Amino acid sequence: MYLEIELVIVFSSFVEILHHKIMSNKIISLFNIKHPIIQGGMIWNSGWKLASAVSNNGGLGLIGAGSMYPEVFREHIQKCKKATNNPFGVNLPMIYPQMDELIQIILDEKIKIVFTSAGNPKKYTSFFQEKGIKVVHVIPGVKFALKAQEAGVDAVVAEGFEAGGHNGRDETTTLCLIPMVKKAINIPLIAAGGIGTGKGMLAAMILGADGVQMGSRFVASEEASSHINFKNEVVKAKDGATQLTLKDVTPVRLIKNKFFKEINEAIIKGATPEQQQEILGRGRAKRGMFEGKLDEGELEIGQVAGLIDTVEPVSKIIENIMVEYQQEIKNINTSKYNF
Amino acid sequence: MYLEIELVIVFSSFVEILHHKIMSNKIISLFNIKHPIIQGGMIWNSGWKLASAVSNNGGLGLIGAGSMYPEVFREHIQKCKKATNNPFGVNLPMIYPQMDELIQIILDEKIKIVFTSAGNPKKYTSFFQEKGIKVVHVIPGVKFALKAQEAGVDAVVAEGFEAGGHNGRDETTTLCLIPMVKKAINIPLIAAGGIGTGKGMLAAMILGADGVQMGSRFVASEEASSHINFKNEVVKAKDGATQLTLKDVTPVRLIKNKFFKEINEAIIKGATPEQQQEILGRGRAKRGMFEGKLDEGELEIGQVAGLIDTVEPVSKIIENIMVEYQQEIKNINTSKYNF
Repeated sequence: MYLEIELVIVFSSFVEILHHKIMSNKIISLFNIKHPIIQGGMIWNSGWKLASAVSNNGGLGLIGAGSMYPEVFREHIQKCKKATNNPFGVNLPMIYPQMDELIQIILDEKIKIVFTSAGNPKKYTSFFQEKGIKVVHVIPGVKFALKAQEAGVDAVVAEGFEAGGHNGRDETTTLCLIPMVKKAINIPLIAAGGIGTGKGMLAAMILGADGVQMGSRFVASEEASSHINFKNEVVKAKDGATQLTLKDVTPVRLIKNKFFKEINEAIIKGATPEQQQEILGRGRAKRGMFEGKLDEGELEIGQVAGLIDTVEPVSKIIENIMVEYQQEIKNINTSKYNF
Repeated sequence: MYLEIELVIVFSSFVEILHHKIMSNKIISLFNIKHPIIQGGMIWNSGWKLASAVSNNGGLGLIGAGSMYPEVFREHIQKCKKATNNPFGVNLPMIYPQMDELIQIILDEKIKIVFTSAGNPKKYTSFFQEKGIKVVHVIPGVKFALKAQEAGVDAVVAEGFEAGGHNGRDETTTLCLIPMVKKAINIPLIAAGGIGTGKGMLAAMILGADGVQMGSRFVASEEASSHINFKNEVVKAKDGATQLTLKDVTPVRLIKNKFFKEINEAIIKGATPEQQQEILGRGRAKRGMFEGKLDEGELEIGQVAGLIDTVEPVSKIIENIMVEYQQEIKNINTSKYNF
């Protein structure tokens, strides 16, 4: 009798462990981090200070290579390594002109996590993985998610229409995109676009994500490398403050500042992609986000800026997100949800 | 000692009841329904059959007046009353040309719930409320939500960019819109746009909604009055199948069919709003959705069509939504969510 009971107990524990193992959070396991929060690797924002702060606070920080010369990129990686013992990664836009140099730096510096975006995931995935590097690819739709899975990536970031900066052409929102991608693939899924709070994180996970990537929320941090003018503009933004534009060149979500209005009027008047490219010129993103020239620069930010009220240290941002997330899990037991 | 314990028990129960009262679902209380699911009052789709089926299955059915002549509207109300003893309502687009006639019918037929859209909520809210009618207004942004609250409406529907049919100009997605509106108002909040599943419903409620309005999901029902060709097209739709167009006339999300491509090309070539209106002509929505002319008609549907795989009876749709919703509430206790 006692033996039976003991066996039952042993068996139950085994089932529980198994269940825990099966159901445990895939993003936490994949990157060996505390919270399934990834900080987007954004140009002009995501240097070593931001990435290391996020990693030190239990998330996954990413250094954004897109706006860095190769040697600057190396410097940021080296500083990041000194600033944190936790895992961190890099974001590599595959349209970068000197890809080979960046890749050499990634290998030299023994980076273990690479997020790729804007390009064909087949190109580098197995190359990196053979060197023990985990590869995640950013996608805006189901067919791209399937291609990434086929290329063997370790996870995908599915990014919705509300996201800041460069964006897909199909305009699928995060609320619709996440369950569609979840239905199509069986690798870990990270939701991005429109997420900046604990409730947003929980909602995204209910829709099928295993974790979240947040960009805009970390722009409005003390550690982001962008100009304080830009950060303050993000804090000021309300609903309707941003719009996706340059759809025939390369779609990008911007704050509707003076430059936005200029390009937008040209588009309405029928400017060709070439004419739009000419108005855009070079260095607009740097001018807006890094130099803080609010009128003439590109100010890339997501719709969720309308929910961001303060520039805070990363430690506070992550703490607030996790407190809100856990509180809302508790609220699920109230009769608002149960009827 | 015993008395103390009893007092503590009595007090705890009291606190629990109070807590339950405070936290009970506001949409269920407001309309006296079983599930906080409202069926959108969509033109050419939402006749008495759909509305009564939704109400009979514990949601709130709405008859869509927008596509009905006044006498047809009266007939649908009378048939709906015969088909259900549960609460149902009507949707009234305030741009309707014969508003006075519709209002007289609403009063004659003793309708108790009116959803208004596309117009100033100040115009009719107190008029209806003085007659014991509950008024809900549909809004696409925070400033409209505040205006509706000021007008004294009983609740608002906040509808995001991913929604089918007519849509706001700011393009704010449901994921961003709901928490922004929630922050701004203190009346009950219904989320719409991109919601067609139990998980979508739970996600919307976590973001701050008290209930949800679903349109597209109920288009693909046996009871919707639209043409089977249109319903099948909704089932076939994948991500990227729809797009918001006619932004300078009146923004509307359509399936990218032959008509869509025609109007879209004209817009890219710089057609004026007047020229666009001319291409649009009259009766396009009827031709597409009611007559099933898939090439030449307007096919209004939301992005969530990409998640809809079958035309089903309303009873099955609501059952599936509620089963998935309740299952996901249970899943919140797994280690995917807890770390």
